[in-house]
Amino acid sequence: MSAQSFRCKAILFAAAMLAVFPAIHAEEGMWTFDNPPLKQLAAKYNFHPSQAWLDHLRLSSVRLNDGGSGSFVSADGLLLTNHHVARGQLQKNSTAEHDYLRDGFYATTPDQEMKSPDLEINVLVGMQNVTERVQGAAKGIKDEKQALTAREAQIAAITKESKDKTGYRSDVVTFYSGGEYWLYQYKVYTDVRLVFAPEQQAAFFGGDPDNFTYPRYDLDMAIFRVYENGKPIHCDNYLKWSAKGASAGDLIFIPGHPGSTSRQDTMAELMLERDVVEPAITEYLKRRLAAAQTYAAQGPEQARQVGSTIFGIQNSLKVYIGRTEALADKSLIAKKQAEEDDFRRKINANSEWKKEYGSAWETIAKAEEQVKPEVRNQLFRRTDSRLFTIALQLVQYAAEIKKPDGERLPQFHDANLQSLKFQMLSPAPITVQTEKLFMKSALNLAQEKLGKTDPYVQAVLQNGAVDSTADSLIDGTKLGDVAARQALIDGGETAITTSSDPMIVAARRVDPILRETQRKMRDTVGSIVTPAGEKLGKARFLVYGKNVYPDATFTLRLSYGTVDGYSYNGTVAPPITTFYGLYDRAGSFGNKPPFDLTPKQQAALGKLDLATPLDFVSTGDIIGGNSGSPVVNREGELVGLIFDGNIESLAGDFVYDGSKNRAVSVHSSGMIEGLRKLYGANALADELEGRK
Amino acid sequence: MSAQSFRCKAILFAAAMLAVFPAIHAEEGMWTFDNPPLKQLAAKYNFHPSQAWLDHLRLSSVRLNDGGSGSFVSADGLLLTNHHVARGQLQKNSTAEHDYLRDGFYATTPDQEMKSPDLEINVLVGMQNVTERVQGAAKGIKDEKQALTAREAQIAAITKESKDKTGYRSDVVTFYSGGEYWLYQYKVYTDVRLVFAPEQQAAFFGGDPDNFTYPRYDLDMAIFRVYENGKPIHCDNYLKWSAKGASAGDLIFIPGHPGSTSRQDTMAELMLERDVVEPAITEYLKRRLAAAQTYAAQGPEQARQVGSTIFGIQNSLKVYIGRTEALADKSLIAKKQAEEDDFRRKINANSEWKKEYGSAWETIAKAEEQVKPEVRNQLFRRTDSRLFTIALQLVQYAAEIKKPDGERLPQFHDANLQSLKFQMLSPAPITVQTEKLFMKSALNLAQEKLGKTDPYVQAVLQNGAVDSTADSLIDGTKLGDVAARQALIDGGETAITTSSDPMIVAARRVDPILRETQRKMRDTVGSIVTPAGEKLGKARFLVYGKNVYPDATFTLRLSYGTVDGYSYNGTVAPPITTFYGLYDRAGSFGNKPPFDLTPKQQAALGKLDLATPLDFVSTGDIIGGNSGSPVVNREGELVGLIFDGNIESLAGDFVYDGSKNRAVSVHSSGMIEGLRKLYGANALADELEGRK
Repeated sequence: MSAQSFRCKAILFAAAMLAVFPAIHAEEGMWTFDNPPLKQLAAKYNFHPSQAWLDHLRLSSVRLNDGGSGSFVSADGLLLTNHHVARGQLQKNSTAEHDYLRDGFYATTPDQEMKSPDLEINVLVGMQNVTERVQGAAKGIKDEKQALTAREAQIAAITKESKDKTGYRSDVVTFYSGGEYWLYQYKVYTDVRLVFAPEQQAAFFGGDPDNFTYPRYDLDMAIFRVYENGKPIHCDNYLKWSAKGASAGDLIFIPGHPGSTSRQDTMAELMLERDVVEPAITEYLKRRLAAAQTYAAQGPEQARQVGSTIFGIQNSLKVYIGRTEALADKSLIAKKQAEEDDFRRKINANSEWKKEYGSAWETIAKAEEQVKPEVRNQLFRRTDSRLFTIALQLVQYAAEIKKPDGERLPQFHDANLQSLKFQMLSPAPITVQTEKLFMKSALNLAQEKLGKTDPYVQAVLQNGAVDSTADSLIDGTKLGDVAARQALIDGGETAITTSSDPMIVAARRVDPILRETQRKMRDTVGSIVTPAGEKLGKARFLVYGKNVYPDATFTLRLSYGTVDGYSYNGTVAPPITTFYGLYDRAGSFGNKPPFDLTPKQQAALGKLDLATPLDFVSTGDIIGGNSGSPVVNREGELVGLIFDGNIESLAGDFVYDGSKNRAVSVHSSGMIEGLRKLYGANALADELEGRK
Repeated sequence: MSAQSFRCKAILFAAAMLAVFPAIHAEEGMWTFDNPPLKQLAAKYNFHPSQAWLDHLRLSSVRLNDGGSGSFVSADGLLLTNHHVARGQLQKNSTAEHDYLRDGFYATTPDQEMKSPDLEINVLVGMQNVTERVQGAAKGIKDEKQALTAREAQIAAITKESKDKTGYRSDVVTFYSGGEYWLYQYKVYTDVRLVFAPEQQAAFFGGDPDNFTYPRYDLDMAIFRVYENGKPIHCDNYLKWSAKGASAGDLIFIPGHPGSTSRQDTMAELMLERDVVEPAITEYLKRRLAAAQTYAAQGPEQARQVGSTIFGIQNSLKVYIGRTEALADKSLIAKKQAEEDDFRRKINANSEWKKEYGSAWETIAKAEEQVKPEVRNQLFRRTDSRLFTIALQLVQYAAEIKKPDGERLPQFHDANLQSLKFQMLSPAPITVQTEKLFMKSALNLAQEKLGKTDPYVQAVLQNGAVDSTADSLIDGTKLGDVAARQALIDGGETAITTSSDPMIVAARRVDPILRETQRKMRDTVGSIVTPAGEKLGKARFLVYGKNVYPDATFTLRLSYGTVDGYSYNGTVAPPITTFYGLYDRAGSFGNKPPFDLTPKQQAALGKLDLATPLDFVSTGDIIGGNSGSPVVNREGELVGLIFDGNIESLAGDFVYDGSKNRAVSVHSSGMIEGLRKLYGANALADELEGRK
């Protein structure tokens, strides 16, 4: 369920705006840590978490730059997340000889712990409300564009100031569509080593069919250890392992980093999503999947190379099909419309509010209509080449770095440079064949959808054929070598402008087109939609107060809920599954992929206690990006590990329905049983259970 | 899935008519044995069953008067059917001391085999096409009512002639809404003794929630032995037990007695079903369920008394809710409309056909509109008392028996008298408390829905209060005693007209009202809808030939299909389940009812081979009444036992969708594993496997 990267893309172009909840459903919400749902917890569960309890949970939680969440689970820096979040790292470390995806990995001694090529983790150590400073910077400025520029400059100043003072990664994050701005300070770790991962088949039993469904029987876990200065870190804040794990009816909490939601979108924005964004992305994903599958069919080594990519595409495709179905559901649309109607009625009932905010919906609707073609163009303007992405980053870096911090493109602000360089200089290997494969697939689709005369298509192809252009770009570039990239960074703008590396040359042609697009989007989304959205944000405070939570933005949130089944398929889905079910489902399909048992699972029959809980569901409100989040009980102990949502949760981007939206987790007892009986990882299990 | 009894009721009033299939979907169809789907089997499966193969299957199949199907499975008269078909018999034999539903039953020696109070089985030994004789009887008669009477007299003559000549139960059955009439001759057995039944909890694991769903883990089986003249019969035709059982992808056959379908209904009839029949029955069932549940909550003995009734109501309610949802589905309605449009277009394209048949749809629509209030009345005119039903049968029997056979109410024809007396004189105990409970519930609803002035309500209550009337009728009647019933039969009409038994007196008041209703329905349905339906039946032959099958009528049919999973819940359902899944689902719900393991299931862990297939699904086209049908392979061996349909199959009353409509069966290997390892019934398993 790691649709994060696509969602961020879609959000960037579709621009998340404000809509409203007339009432919060029980257990709905991805709450910021400054505004936890204390009232709800007190009223329904008689639970009153202390500030220390909340701080401990926050400081035990981490964000991974691969697009997921995780948590510290031992004093010596053990980090628990999903196998599917770690999959990219496993693939990068794998070779034809050592296929860690197929076979899994376990470091029995510290020196076997395996460095991750480009994994970065962030811990949210500080939060400050900077709303007044940001909004104040634009005070009195009538022109929306100037006001935007003023706010952006202020944001850059705040982040730089924080970074300089504390050394922490510092982001100013926007909530409630500009209703609030917060400075989030992150402690960053970049030396993250793999300790344990099961076989992909054990983690992802049931494959694409079972993905985003429940009941499930997956051990979707991976364990890293975080190092600093060559030594494991010492964690003051980590989650103790629950002796018992989750039980039906338990109150549970989920700290994590949900990627994005569109629950506060206006109807106009939802319609853009339904009519433009979802169909374009679905079409793109289908094309990309077909290319990957054709390649994989050529042989086992090819299949290995694109295995992780295929997983990612299928995963996203299931998300987008689910979202498309949700938006085609008339009752969902009617519900959203009723919410918007209620909000508008309340605003219009007060003449002062009406004057100030009443036109915002129309403003957004008009702007959305205007940017529609541009949004569609952006969705097809892809190269799908890591080498091209690096080239573009290098080209833009050289140009941006010269400017004052406040005037740069957002991703080049001082505060972001450390992470950006970490990406640009990643030593992760780049495979020429798959680079060509996906670049050709993306450019063919772009040419088909946008035509040969599209400026972006023109800039990349220069009227050349797709295949030969991609071949010559990829064969000709030196950017596969990290030293070559470093040299271009060190050489500054001169090195970039004089480079004859074909990928850099192509990126130089593409750069102005992207800047022009960014300008256009800024003129509509940034200068019209964002301010109108901010108005709705303020209006929302007036009507509903802070009893609501902001849409997800890949920032740390707190969800809560109960371990509970739900109605489905004419019957009820159980709150928990057991290892028995794994062997049933494998046998039910004659042990055929993707329902095949691994050799270790076959060998463990007789050793495993099959009645041990394996997975479970809860009503916690999550979405892509929450993958790898810990599930904790009232005592703050770890009882589970989020790894998916059920099929009904795919509508959760737009609306939460507590009767059927469920978060799917690995059970803490299932993880221990698996570590000990399937993998003989007793030392690791002892460390997790605090028996060391 | 034994909705048979209700369906027959609904059909009686709503009158099943003709509509058409422009094309038969693969594996669709409940084929009569005179017209098996040989073309389809040859084309798709290269399978060419001989007449002997078909005859053997037919003569191995039985119909049970409890509303289900079954098959002979040993040379010595073993009869296999579902536990839920046998449930009524188990309940009638149970007492507070011996609860065979809770504990199951196994006769280790022949003398322990337990007589069923009123179970009758029919084997279809002869079939003759009598269409010409029946249709010929009305030849030249213009008046529709007179024509109907002539046909009915002819039918009565045919059945009497057959019964007299052969001694077989003889029914003239109508197919294709009068397009064909067949004489079906049945060998009848009434000495049917229970040999084995598992605990109800093992048979019905998952209870109401899992009913009509899949994946399932139920051992829904029961085994009887058929006796004649005090000795087990010798079967020339019985199904050999397959050594291997069903496997994914296998071609399978299902001979059985589907109760009724409405696939050939006109749109007007479907709308009557949707707008009148389904809502009324659903409301009635909900009321009856509430009454039963309130009673069951009073104590364990009460719960035992109504346990089987509650099962039946919940089962029907799930059916009616499923049917209601199906009819609310716009795509289903659109599909049915398209089918009707195609049929009408083809008729109207031929000027001769148009003149003869073109108006039939409108005729039916008008008549349906006219009988709508009467249909609704009938659905609420209930007493729900077995004693009242017996009283009414006695009253009508005395009056009808005097008349010539051809003029009697259909159920009193000579050919039916044996079965009718078997019912009237059943020694099965009647519980006073539950008689009162359900009579009060039914009369309260009737009074509420129809008003106190409704003639039926008036006739039963005579302006008295519901509770006191029901109490005095039930407390005052002697009909609980079989001898009292026999005396009234022996006393003839005088005994009936002079009886002061309050139930007989009430039945005498109700009888004319029911006759009046029957007359009205005859005037519309019998004289208008039936002839119009016959026209459509003929038209249907002209357009589509006999490449289609008639709607189900609780007569023997042959379905076929493959063992195959299907898409559901965002993933795929497996073709087969295993015993592992039983233990998973029980553990998943913490072993709480209705997902609790029986003591025998708990004790058998370690003995059972959990990988043994337990249940499976196939694309065979079935419906209520098929319960207990055998599933056989190409060799005619028994590989499974039908016990349910999946939730998607509830739309199957109206339309078959091979992509998701599935029949659910117990696997033959699961039955043997259960008999041997759970119940120690090795002798029985040996007899089934032919090892005796």
